[in-house]
Amino acid sequence: MHEFQLINKYFSKLSNKNKSSQNLNDDVFFNKSERLVVSVDTYVEGVHFINFKKPELVIKKIIRSSISDIICKGVKPKYYFVSASGNKKSFSSINLKKISKSLKQEQNKYNILLCGGDTVYSNKLSFTVTSIGFSQKIIFRNNAKLDDDIYVTGNLGDSFAGLNILKKKIHINNSLNNYFESKYYLPNLHLKLCNKLLNFANTSIDISDGLIADLEKLINKQNLSYKLNLNSIPISTNLRKLLAQKKLDKISYISRGDDYQILFTANSSKSRIINKTAKSLGIKISKIGKICSNLQKSQIIDQKGNKIAVKTKGYSHRF
Amino acid sequence: MHEFQLINKYFSKLSNKNKSSQNLNDDVFFNKSERLVVSVDTYVEGVHFINFKKPELVIKKIIRSSISDIICKGVKPKYYFVSASGNKKSFSSINLKKISKSLKQEQNKYNILLCGGDTVYSNKLSFTVTSIGFSQKIIFRNNAKLDDDIYVTGNLGDSFAGLNILKKKIHINNSLNNYFESKYYLPNLHLKLCNKLLNFANTSIDISDGLIADLEKLINKQNLSYKLNLNSIPISTNLRKLLAQKKLDKISYISRGDDYQILFTANSSKSRIINKTAKSLGIKISKIGKICSNLQKSQIIDQKGNKIAVKTKGYSHRF
Repeated sequence: MHEFQLINKYFSKLSNKNKSSQNLNDDVFFNKSERLVVSVDTYVEGVHFINFKKPELVIKKIIRSSISDIICKGVKPKYYFVSASGNKKSFSSINLKKISKSLKQEQNKYNILLCGGDTVYSNKLSFTVTSIGFSQKIIFRNNAKLDDDIYVTGNLGDSFAGLNILKKKIHINNSLNNYFESKYYLPNLHLKLCNKLLNFANTSIDISDGLIADLEKLINKQNLSYKLNLNSIPISTNLRKLLAQKKLDKISYISRGDDYQILFTANSSKSRIINKTAKSLGIKISKIGKICSNLQKSQIIDQKGNKIAVKTKGYSHRF
Repeated sequence: MHEFQLINKYFSKLSNKNKSSQNLNDDVFFNKSERLVVSVDTYVEGVHFINFKKPELVIKKIIRSSISDIICKGVKPKYYFVSASGNKKSFSSINLKKISKSLKQEQNKYNILLCGGDTVYSNKLSFTVTSIGFSQKIIFRNNAKLDDDIYVTGNLGDSFAGLNILKKKIHINNSLNNYFESKYYLPNLHLKLCNKLLNFANTSIDISDGLIADLEKLINKQNLSYKLNLNSIPISTNLRKLLAQKKLDKISYISRGDDYQILFTANSSKSRIINKTAKSLGIKISKIGKICSNLQKSQIIDQKGNKIAVKTKGYSHRF
């Protein structure tokens, strides 16, 4: 069963009294009177990260993935809690030293503070991260308006290329190797953009499961569709080279997960302020499509106006 | 390495700037200006619960264990988040229905609300629960005063008897079976006592690892010792019967974990108000010993004034 169906069927009613949790249909919990924003995520070895050979990078990716949920809603994360389950080997002194050093670096980079957690013995390595921020306002899911422009920050697909390289599905030269692996492990979150987003975004999500999967999640309770221009979807020069060299489809790379870029929609009147913000912060923000009425099906169009078929929409959590 | 040493060595420095987290040396995080109280705990099958044959009971025990951390600090829990890792069998429709029903019952009993979480696939069953409450004040660890009386709520040891019955280490008749098993799965938390505790307790902890282990944790940063009177340590009539029948030591039962009773210290001048509170709320509160100077060693004394040796201090989390 799909994660959404499961949550809806068995657990949404448990949060019914509380509108702020959006019946568990958002990535974060928000309560306005307490200004509280909370995100809880679990990362399991072999599912959310390949292995623990590079604990110093894995822990950074996990922390960034967790605070990304809050940042994409227009809120600065402040506190985080890590509950770590694993065995002696995973949490050897050497590994703990590396983890501690990485956490310190992340704390400085994103201005967050470790406030607690748990350490338990398990033969399966996993981490649960709780991130907390404070705000009077957040950007909700399912708040896109008809004719909104669809935007995305940064480039897509680099992380999936990194994953394929780490899995040895792709072989390339060393310098590109390092580029993509680093994009996989160290997604660059746009902390500076976070408060500005509240000025123009109607709805937003971070891309963790893939552009298409997350766009569909973003509007899953709305009677709306989308139209994306494949050509406008931003990829790095390095990925462009890789795709050409290996004869790979752009669509299959940009629709996979782990990019942690922010996907949002905004009224077309906001395009000037969005471009201005992008320039002043030095953050790439690309207009990639439009929100349409559901009289037409959602579609992705190539340069020639032809519809593109999407084989894999992205990663989805299933039991 | 012991959980405490591990946290101190590698992670305490990451929270240094923030006094409210007590350098990670308390079970909860507290920030006064935000009135925020947070507890994060992970429960692994085979470590924190035997198996998942009774999901409706396991989930209740887990939720109670989590909110117990907050209640024992004098704070009412308000929100909780559950991150569940497991396989299809653990999260079958039948089990999800049972879990959902149990959560609803716990929500009504303790006035808490499910606000989010995560569901991930793993071949190892575990739950991480984040509980959140709001308060301007909490009762900290390591705040016992010399000559404080030591108190405990309810009865100790019933849960350990229940565990031994479930593990088939003890065989008794059916009605006692049910009594002890229910004490193991459904510890009775003292939500009503929670706000009152702030009026008299200097320091407090919930007994999850065992009376002795948790008492030592409670004062582990202080130059103090304790003196407990074995005879005053409260046990149920049923446990008294069981110990006599099976010729078991009281000390080995009351020093094991999972009781989720509240252990606290208070100035001797508070004994009247404590007795009054106990009576008016219908909660058993027993004076079981005293906080002493560390010029003498911590000790447990039997009826005749003889020192008791403690073989197992309780459960301790180790990697």
